[in-house]
Amino acid sequence: MYIGVDLGGTNIAAGIVDDNGKLIYKSSVPTQKERHYSEIIKDMAELVKTIVADAGYDISDIKAIGIGCPGTIDNSNGIVVYSNNIKMDHVPLVDEFRKYIDIPVNIENDANAAAYGEYIANGNNVNSYVFMTLGTGVGGGIIINGKIYRGFNCAGAEIGHSSIVIDGKTCTCGKKGCLECYASVTALIEQTEEKMKECPDSLMIEWARTHGKVSGRTAFECAKVGDKAAIEVKDKYIRYIAEGVSNIINIFQPDMFVIGGGISKEGDELLVPIKKFVYENDFNKYMPKTEIKIAELFNDAGIIGAALAAENE
Amino acid sequence: MYIGVDLGGTNIAAGIVDDNGKLIYKSSVPTQKERHYSEIIKDMAELVKTIVADAGYDISDIKAIGIGCPGTIDNSNGIVVYSNNIKMDHVPLVDEFRKYIDIPVNIENDANAAAYGEYIANGNNVNSYVFMTLGTGVGGGIIINGKIYRGFNCAGAEIGHSSIVIDGKTCTCGKKGCLECYASVTALIEQTEEKMKECPDSLMIEWARTHGKVSGRTAFECAKVGDKAAIEVKDKYIRYIAEGVSNIINIFQPDMFVIGGGISKEGDELLVPIKKFVYENDFNKYMPKTEIKIAELFNDAGIIGAALAAENE
Repeated sequence: MYIGVDLGGTNIAAGIVDDNGKLIYKSSVPTQKERHYSEIIKDMAELVKTIVADAGYDISDIKAIGIGCPGTIDNSNGIVVYSNNIKMDHVPLVDEFRKYIDIPVNIENDANAAAYGEYIANGNNVNSYVFMTLGTGVGGGIIINGKIYRGFNCAGAEIGHSSIVIDGKTCTCGKKGCLECYASVTALIEQTEEKMKECPDSLMIEWARTHGKVSGRTAFECAKVGDKAAIEVKDKYIRYIAEGVSNIINIFQPDMFVIGGGISKEGDELLVPIKKFVYENDFNKYMPKTEIKIAELFNDAGIIGAALAAENE
Repeated sequence: MYIGVDLGGTNIAAGIVDDNGKLIYKSSVPTQKERHYSEIIKDMAELVKTIVADAGYDISDIKAIGIGCPGTIDNSNGIVVYSNNIKMDHVPLVDEFRKYIDIPVNIENDANAAAYGEYIANGNNVNSYVFMTLGTGVGGGIIINGKIYRGFNCAGAEIGHSSIVIDGKTCTCGKKGCLECYASVTALIEQTEEKMKECPDSLMIEWARTHGKVSGRTAFECAKVGDKAAIEVKDKYIRYIAEGVSNIINIFQPDMFVIGGGISKEGDELLVPIKKFVYENDFNKYMPKTEIKIAELFNDAGIIGAALAAENE
């Protein structure tokens, strides 16, 4: 039995994952990310103790704990090299955590962890697998021959930070034109707001008023009832994602390419046009095509993947 | 002892490679690529027989033959699935070749073969290695844990066909905005010609007249003697390459990234500004950086790599 912890900007989620990779119990607490990291780590350990007790187990039943964390993670030394979202700079997270619970602990970049969770659950043991998660940013995870591909310095798989528009929008990473600037949900919200300014008659205005804000759902929902401006936003946004997927597939030609993150719940609305673009523009015109699909674990991918990565390490 | 054959659009080059990966003898014949592939294959086999005899060996001294070929190569079945440059469509190259010389034969995409050759010769056994070759197109080769990464369908590593300009120039692959449309030598020549039209006083005009044509060297040579227009062409071209290198490094964070192809002979002229851009724009700001360097085997990489890949298979 393993524990997976998904350290997010809003919540710390933790769950117990059995030896078959099934999530059998989970809970969460607010991260309160403005605090010093030592308090956050203490809360993570408390949450782990709580779920173990609440589920009727003892900590001795747990073989290892895996923590998924945003940022650059030095997995082999247990260090959060840098996280922008939750402020950490060369934090020895594993050592700090083991002050509270002294069993094997593994940390992993959160997108890598989610990728690994999805891969184990729904990746059919393929040799090459790419996961893209669309959220605040665009994260990526690459699994080759069953192993998380991290690059030589553990900073790899940043597929959201390959550019699709040379000298385009400035990204949070400092570079210009990154896929993340166009295909993240943050970017979708920007694109939606821009179009709302242009089209004051769009249904999106009323939708945003009713829901109290513009979200990643605004354009998709209004497109469903035929709002022209919303359809334009949605189509253009999907085109950006498709460009990124196509680029990555030309590089990896993976057996499977999986799209996750909240917006992936749009399902075929997203998947069908992405597949159309990618298969039409694929460099590979004569060999079998990469299977492109939507993630299945959604929010649990991070917990399950962190736990399974700990098992694997 | 192994034989490597590099099947190019202009020449068929073949060489004998010893067990230490050293090229000990080589020769070439014109490809005459308009011919039926069966004639080209026959000439390849004749060339192999000739170099073996000329070097004073017998075909029984050769353990295997490796052939590097442009296009999509089904390496496990020995088939050229598709090659645009030398017209081949589902050609069983290995079977055809073995009609003439019946020893183990392996075929490999030419860029993969060159990557593998450079990797073995100068890759220091690193775990992750990316090779980019700038020529008529932009080819790529990826070596992970000592193995050529081909993707599940042998069509992978096409790093020249990830886009850097969404909806940009139409590529020979059908997609728009591919790196190849901006960073290949073909693209450099186009960029040079465009600037020459704009700047009739540029030294490039005289250079082209003297040399009988515009080439990949035109802008680089004229930039060296201070021609403003040439400097602009050169700087912009290098910027395109750097964009591609930066994208690939953010994805792979390989131990080593190597730039090959004829234009790579420009050395530091190319390497210094590429490194500057990549290191300044790298997503990885806190971990060791990828070593970026110029290829060393140049034209022999294809022969040596094809031979070594055959040894490896």
